[in-house]
Amino acid sequence: MNFHKYVENLPTYEAGKPLELLMREFNIAPCDIIKLGSNENPFGVSPSALNAIKENAHLASVYPDDSYFELKNALSKTYNIESKNIIIGSGSDQIIEFCLHSICDSHKSVLMAKTTFAMYEIYAKHFNAKILRTSDFYHNLDSMYNMYREHKPSVIFLCTPNNPLGEALLKDDVIKFIEKIDSETLIVLDCAYMEYCAYKSKKHEIKPSDIVKYPNVIYLGTFSKAYGLGGMRVGYGIANPSIISTLHKLRPPFNITTLSLKAATASLNDSDFINKSVENNVKEMTKYKAFAESNLLEMLESYANFVTFLLNNKLNSTKISFLLLQKGIVIRDLSSYGLNAFRITIGTPKQNDILLEKLGQILKDLS
Amino acid sequence: MNFHKYVENLPTYEAGKPLELLMREFNIAPCDIIKLGSNENPFGVSPSALNAIKENAHLASVYPDDSYFELKNALSKTYNIESKNIIIGSGSDQIIEFCLHSICDSHKSVLMAKTTFAMYEIYAKHFNAKILRTSDFYHNLDSMYNMYREHKPSVIFLCTPNNPLGEALLKDDVIKFIEKIDSETLIVLDCAYMEYCAYKSKKHEIKPSDIVKYPNVIYLGTFSKAYGLGGMRVGYGIANPSIISTLHKLRPPFNITTLSLKAATASLNDSDFINKSVENNVKEMTKYKAFAESNLLEMLESYANFVTFLLNNKLNSTKISFLLLQKGIVIRDLSSYGLNAFRITIGTPKQNDILLEKLGQILKDLS
Repeated sequence: MNFHKYVENLPTYEAGKPLELLMREFNIAPCDIIKLGSNENPFGVSPSALNAIKENAHLASVYPDDSYFELKNALSKTYNIESKNIIIGSGSDQIIEFCLHSICDSHKSVLMAKTTFAMYEIYAKHFNAKILRTSDFYHNLDSMYNMYREHKPSVIFLCTPNNPLGEALLKDDVIKFIEKIDSETLIVLDCAYMEYCAYKSKKHEIKPSDIVKYPNVIYLGTFSKAYGLGGMRVGYGIANPSIISTLHKLRPPFNITTLSLKAATASLNDSDFINKSVENNVKEMTKYKAFAESNLLEMLESYANFVTFLLNNKLNSTKISFLLLQKGIVIRDLSSYGLNAFRITIGTPKQNDILLEKLGQILKDLS
Repeated sequence: MNFHKYVENLPTYEAGKPLELLMREFNIAPCDIIKLGSNENPFGVSPSALNAIKENAHLASVYPDDSYFELKNALSKTYNIESKNIIIGSGSDQIIEFCLHSICDSHKSVLMAKTTFAMYEIYAKHFNAKILRTSDFYHNLDSMYNMYREHKPSVIFLCTPNNPLGEALLKDDVIKFIEKIDSETLIVLDCAYMEYCAYKSKKHEIKPSDIVKYPNVIYLGTFSKAYGLGGMRVGYGIANPSIISTLHKLRPPFNITTLSLKAATASLNDSDFINKSVENNVKEMTKYKAFAESNLLEMLESYANFVTFLLNNKLNSTKISFLLLQKGIVIRDLSSYGLNAFRITIGTPKQNDILLEKLGQILKDLS
């Protein structure tokens, strides 16, 4: 077979055993597993979305309305924009893919922060683009700008709040940055965790309506986090219609499921659930802060729904993650990011209490 | 913005108004709409799949098991192959995209029948490939072979049964064809409608296990047709592990939803539902045959779950489709395929009776 060499050279991502099977080996029942590794909403699905799924389950045989009319209408109202500003993706991941597909090839480069969402690089490599990264620990817009001037990348990714470190950029700084970049470079503003950030700090809140006037900026949002629909694969891109109309040319028909469409539309109107989710997040994060202080651990300040602990040389993040797994708790080891660190999704009060108790015990045993 | 010229030149596919809104203009209630335009299963979702969706609705917040362990296991048993022979896609469409992405660029060409599934050309153009088509009305493997020898395409699509014409290739002919093609050319065998064909004619049945030994053939199947899950977006590719492992490099994580995974796995075990679906199809098709004969219409022999009528100059397929739409019945006008023809999905006995009565009336009014 004559596959592209650059495709054959891509790393193979092989998912491991299903969690339930793995846990069975540790004698842990599925109902006792605490999943705090993937930044899912610990309160599960919103009541409105759950109801929408059950009520429309019989429509699973029928292709969705491919105009996504209702969902785009609901998003337009939520964000005070127009339907022509919106593209719907199978997760915001798919919008990232459309952006890179429409621009990249082996002659193009993509700029991103040193430590940021892993899929930017992976999708960029699907189109054979060159990867450029700043060297600062956090997003640093001055460094970004310097690298932009030197390399003229075709795409720049800003992730705010940033996964997996948790920092957020100030809105004013982002706008200033955007205005310095030539309109030939696409700026992808990944705001998957913005609902959590907006509740914590208005200065860090960026709204889609802030950026739609720019011809080269796209805002990405998702239903996977605060909206509690990680398993339904719905995200969106919001941008100037000139960008949206080109990305639409690459959108496969029916790229989200009929039930995803119903659930996402319903969840947008469930403000009680969103409020409960973001309030719990800020409140429960204080438990982790207190734990870090009393255990002399370095915890990064977070504007998202997770906290990241940086470990010193005496501790090993992979080992600690595995010890927690054996106790039925899933967190995210960040060794694949080149960090001796782990990321924990903020859970329900009960989940956090169990996790912190077990983590405390592990640290005590290791000391 | 510096989008690729070939992307900007792609046609924009803009979905029209949602069906329910359109029908409201004709004073037709949603419950009275008869959808026979998209080859969905007229019996809806299988009872097992419906149950799986409702029982697992609370898992909509959780990312799916990305190894698709259970579904691959179930497919392996159904088809007597191994998990390493399988890749899961968001519909078989996504597998088509992976195949073209991994091989095509502006220097490659893709060969297909004159009239076949429209997405082959659309996805091939996403990767800037050249399109080659045979000139015969139906799939003609001799013509395919001649064009293959002349142009050495990188990918060949065979759709059997073929959408939208309904013809099927003999298994022996397909195997002979495969064996004449150099292993550098990928043969995509799209068998989305194979469950219907297999029930009608064993000589036309192709099984995944017939082709996994070849290093350059991939079999595509779907849960959207006989399995009644069109809205859940699940398809699969089955091939030699050398192909599957390369395509996996392009698969985005979590490319199907958590509920799609549960529903597809459940539906594989619901043989009663599949049997009922394929039996109804053959039985009800005789009504259409009788109708065609008594109205002197040309109906193509079909091995799928639809029938296609070719019209003479006195009738216009677009007009007839619109007249049926006004009566609440959706069929598929094939004018976009350059044909004065329409395609009707075989419905339930009641749906077919209503459709044929109304179509008969329209033909009478037009004569």
